[in-house]
Amino acid sequence: MLERFKVPEKDRVYVPEASIRAATEAVFRQAGLDDRGARQSADVLITNDLRGVESHGISNQLRNYLRMYGEGALNPRPDIKVARETDTTAVVDADGGLGIHVAPDGMRMAIEKAKKHGTGTVAVIKAGHLGGAGYHASLATQENMIGQAMAAPGGGQTLPTFGAEPRFGTHPVAWAAPARNQPPFLFDVATTQVAGNKIQLAKRVGADLEPAWIANMDGEPILDRVPVPQSYYQLPFGGTRENSSHKGYGMMAMIDIMCNSMTGVGAGFLTGGGGQLFVATDVQAFIDLDEYFDWMDQFLEGLRNTKPASGHERVLYPGLSEWEETQERSSNGIPYHREVIEWFESYAAEVGVEVNLR
Amino acid sequence: MLERFKVPEKDRVYVPEASIRAATEAVFRQAGLDDRGARQSADVLITNDLRGVESHGISNQLRNYLRMYGEGALNPRPDIKVARETDTTAVVDADGGLGIHVAPDGMRMAIEKAKKHGTGTVAVIKAGHLGGAGYHASLATQENMIGQAMAAPGGGQTLPTFGAEPRFGTHPVAWAAPARNQPPFLFDVATTQVAGNKIQLAKRVGADLEPAWIANMDGEPILDRVPVPQSYYQLPFGGTRENSSHKGYGMMAMIDIMCNSMTGVGAGFLTGGGGQLFVATDVQAFIDLDEYFDWMDQFLEGLRNTKPASGHERVLYPGLSEWEETQERSSNGIPYHREVIEWFESYAAEVGVEVNLR
Repeated sequence: MLERFKVPEKDRVYVPEASIRAATEAVFRQAGLDDRGARQSADVLITNDLRGVESHGISNQLRNYLRMYGEGALNPRPDIKVARETDTTAVVDADGGLGIHVAPDGMRMAIEKAKKHGTGTVAVIKAGHLGGAGYHASLATQENMIGQAMAAPGGGQTLPTFGAEPRFGTHPVAWAAPARNQPPFLFDVATTQVAGNKIQLAKRVGADLEPAWIANMDGEPILDRVPVPQSYYQLPFGGTRENSSHKGYGMMAMIDIMCNSMTGVGAGFLTGGGGQLFVATDVQAFIDLDEYFDWMDQFLEGLRNTKPASGHERVLYPGLSEWEETQERSSNGIPYHREVIEWFESYAAEVGVEVNLR
Repeated sequence: MLERFKVPEKDRVYVPEASIRAATEAVFRQAGLDDRGARQSADVLITNDLRGVESHGISNQLRNYLRMYGEGALNPRPDIKVARETDTTAVVDADGGLGIHVAPDGMRMAIEKAKKHGTGTVAVIKAGHLGGAGYHASLATQENMIGQAMAAPGGGQTLPTFGAEPRFGTHPVAWAAPARNQPPFLFDVATTQVAGNKIQLAKRVGADLEPAWIANMDGEPILDRVPVPQSYYQLPFGGTRENSSHKGYGMMAMIDIMCNSMTGVGAGFLTGGGGQLFVATDVQAFIDLDEYFDWMDQFLEGLRNTKPASGHERVLYPGLSEWEETQERSSNGIPYHREVIEWFESYAAEVGVEVNLR
């Protein structure tokens, strides 16, 4: 994460992982989820927070989720049904469950299919917010598989290249691949220039946006460094056509097709979208695991050991700094903005749940 | 394609599709390929030329391929073997055949598996240049499937974000999806800021490169508009970190993992790479074809009809302008640079093949 998005030192409250996990599970149970559902949902948020992916953790997401449970917009006890199934594929109707609650089981189903047939591809429809794609893709690496997760939420945020009307959300995608001695590879991104939640984070910490991160309401990319304006559209990664925004746009469109048109949800900008897709690919269908691990460790080591460009300390690979952050935060606690902890405590008090965050 | 990459009007020679196709098949046969191989190889190049993807057609590629056949660096009569296979996956050893010759059969194998099991994933190893990923992905749409193709050639061209040593080639990827009334969707890109061959094209037509398209030999992105310098490295799409180059880098790394580490070829920057991967996903495993087509046509129409940003005439979707170009060029001939036609004629004369290009 870019430095300016971090919680400023003076505003940090460090909370031990076990405390925030217990508290989060408790408020999810209070919202109506069963034990397993509450544990699963909390695990997505806390895993993101441990990785330093604040945009998809407690700070930005939990209060939205709880509000939606409160309003009846999410189903805490969904009756999940398989709508269509083949050897290697399925469409799962999640009955209005929250993505962080139900989607991991979609990926687990893909993994089971891949164990038998080499690959598994499972779509989850009628589910709420996925909570980032990375968590879900990573489940596959625990089974020595390559995992892919994507989601196509809505159509009201992001412009197609040369467009002045939004057609996409942030359309996240993640690929995860296991390694033996090196931390696993985890490429986990929004296909916008910047994750939608990061704009909210920037607002909270008073950070400027970079050139070509967003467009004005006429569809023109804003090429100056500016504070977050009142209204704006997001741009596909690349930002401008000369900077390859058509590549971000194309990825978004493909994600929308696979998650929405291919699953019967229908184009995100016409229906609200929300389809999610999970793919597991068993490494051993292609190569002996030992040989794969030999290559992966050499590959990831080679990337880390790349000579850095001047002005840079080192070369990272996707997932490396998040893995390091996880080690750090598991030991020393997760730094939350004091405002987030104050909100959590007051919410818990209001609904009569006991939490211990300090 | 950006305007400045087109062949200047005064240098154009329009050649009918049938003429350039017959001539290309003839020189491939002369290079030692059998009839089917020559037809297949020519079809990839001519399809790219029809689509306006000059970087992967006759102009940039054919003379390299013929030189390599001449030097014995490519095998015109490969003995293709399946190295490993499951219901839904295979690794195919292409025995040194050229990618445009052998890779389409890899995709066809993936399609056959998808017909039986919902999806198919086939890796092709020990093959030469793929000739762009789009052609191969598109084969799936003819069978009402979604196609994906990717390749991880070499490791000496493109820097990882913050790096000063190259670790990747141009690592192309394509996704293709069928539609009923709208031209099919085809997202077909290099994961660099710009395809390697486009830099050669820019050199030929004397066009400048855009800011952050390439880096100097110390790994610093060149932020000015400059002619193509003598030596340079390429950058992942995004160009700079602030412009999301870590997204291009992550895609490249994932493509390298799936094409090279997962197939036993080994990391591109350590071994030279060259693995290729083809995925076919049968739409009907997820949804009835009619319902899919209804959504796809609405989706693609909605993208085309997006209100354009000021200064732009219309919004495209990936594959649309290439489809229009194909209609145009099928009728009126393919515009080649006179230099290319002169080369073709003199090569044909030299090897004793009769061609009729004017």
